[in-house]
Amino acid sequence: MKLATIQWEGQTRAAVQVSEGYLPLNARDLSELLSDGAWKQQLETALAAYAHNDAVPADAIEVLNPLPRPAKVICCGLNYSEHILEMGRELPEHPTLFAKYADTLTGPDAQIISRHSQHVDWEAELAVVVGERLADATPEEAAAAIAGYTVANDVSMRDWQRRTLQWFQGKAFDASTPIGPVIATADEVDPEAGLEVICRINGEEVQRGNTKTLVFSAARLVAYISQFTTLQPGDLILTGTPGGVGMGMEPPRFLQDGDVLETEIPGIGTLTNKISIRVAAESAA
Amino acid sequence: MKLATIQWEGQTRAAVQVSEGYLPLNARDLSELLSDGAWKQQLETALAAYAHNDAVPADAIEVLNPLPRPAKVICCGLNYSEHILEMGRELPEHPTLFAKYADTLTGPDAQIISRHSQHVDWEAELAVVVGERLADATPEEAAAAIAGYTVANDVSMRDWQRRTLQWFQGKAFDASTPIGPVIATADEVDPEAGLEVICRINGEEVQRGNTKTLVFSAARLVAYISQFTTLQPGDLILTGTPGGVGMGMEPPRFLQDGDVLETEIPGIGTLTNKISIRVAAESAA
Repeated sequence: MKLATIQWEGQTRAAVQVSEGYLPLNARDLSELLSDGAWKQQLETALAAYAHNDAVPADAIEVLNPLPRPAKVICCGLNYSEHILEMGRELPEHPTLFAKYADTLTGPDAQIISRHSQHVDWEAELAVVVGERLADATPEEAAAAIAGYTVANDVSMRDWQRRTLQWFQGKAFDASTPIGPVIATADEVDPEAGLEVICRINGEEVQRGNTKTLVFSAARLVAYISQFTTLQPGDLILTGTPGGVGMGMEPPRFLQDGDVLETEIPGIGTLTNKISIRVAAESAA
Repeated sequence: MKLATIQWEGQTRAAVQVSEGYLPLNARDLSELLSDGAWKQQLETALAAYAHNDAVPADAIEVLNPLPRPAKVICCGLNYSEHILEMGRELPEHPTLFAKYADTLTGPDAQIISRHSQHVDWEAELAVVVGERLADATPEEAAAAIAGYTVANDVSMRDWQRRTLQWFQGKAFDASTPIGPVIATADEVDPEAGLEVICRINGEEVQRGNTKTLVFSAARLVAYISQFTTLQPGDLILTGTPGGVGMGMEPPRFLQDGDVLETEIPGIGTLTNKISIRVAAESAA
């Protein structure tokens, strides 16, 4: 199944995709739906009661950021083996992790506005949505607790990221990380079998990787993180980006005002975000 | 004024210290109190109506983590000039920042339990409590928006912190960062004039610094952070630790099972946290 948070008749609602469009659920968004321990049953009940005339057509709604209020957004860097090996590095023993906040996220079609950086770079990623409370989980327990997967772009302000050794400040600009458009439930897609992760700028492909080459799988990442912090339903884990980011190009390439950034994982969906660079003279890097 | 979150008659309450003890306020904790835009007026009204028999004696309550639900906990590293200069480094141009979550915090008298690290180190710090919504603030605006200050210890799992280049995983263990015991309002203490920041283990002083030597003052840090992310009332900014951490000793020294960690800022208060090391054999570093 594919779950979404939609804007419909002036309100936001959690919804499930059906052939005729979207079936609204009894929660204002997927953060609220997932925080209900019985969300799978609610979904089954709604689908069992589904009559064709209950669905809202796709052209009557707007698809929003599916998870507006995760308590934790934890990201992994350096996680695609082919990219690490091509850079001449050894595979890491532990995942490199950093944090974002709910405010960092934005919608699948939202404009991304940079007011303080002209070094805006792209990082197409698979994101994992936690479906149950998890502490000190094994990889098997973690796998069973994954609600689903979504598409993310860990858009990074490289100048801010490199001001110090800690990446956080370049990764935590408000409304800079688009996610969505839907959460594909865990029975729908299998990252270990392989999902393509693709990034395009104005239609030109700049990144393509496959999640089967992740050093730390979704389940291993979730299990690892649960050793130090308890994860809750609706928390989001970004799994890292494959090769092809702008910072690694010669010369480095950054997103320009007006660029259209597309991030796609076939089987889940596509994010389409227009870039707006509005740096005042005194903030220019 | 000194504000606290207290446990009293089976419930938690925001409260203000008065000479006879604590005056409970109309909020379940300081996170809720500060999220009310009229918290200063509520405080004034409560104090104006204060009769001696309204106060709860200190021995009838327990002092809890003052801010149980900040949306953001952002920390600065490498911020004491005397420590940076004694290490032979240059003063940084930008603050080094990393993130914690609300779950990372714990109470001023709570036991700190380490189940996955035997390299538990101390970092006594001044923490800044944001009192108003702030985006793209000047240092002057930031200074005016500071609700107050509290004591924190950024207890760090050095083995996890050093597994990768990003410190986050060693800094974000659940219930590892004690804060409190009170929030001293901004009219009560002045970090730029100088507050001593002291850490003791089993009574032995291991750290002593003064906030007047901070490279980035509280107001500058808050203003800087507000350039990339909007701060909300109740958000917490940790300002960094002075010299004297265990990792810098020869040989390195870490907290042992049963140690009592005291963190004091005269004028605000003292945290007293007993350390419990409960590492299973397979997790031992």
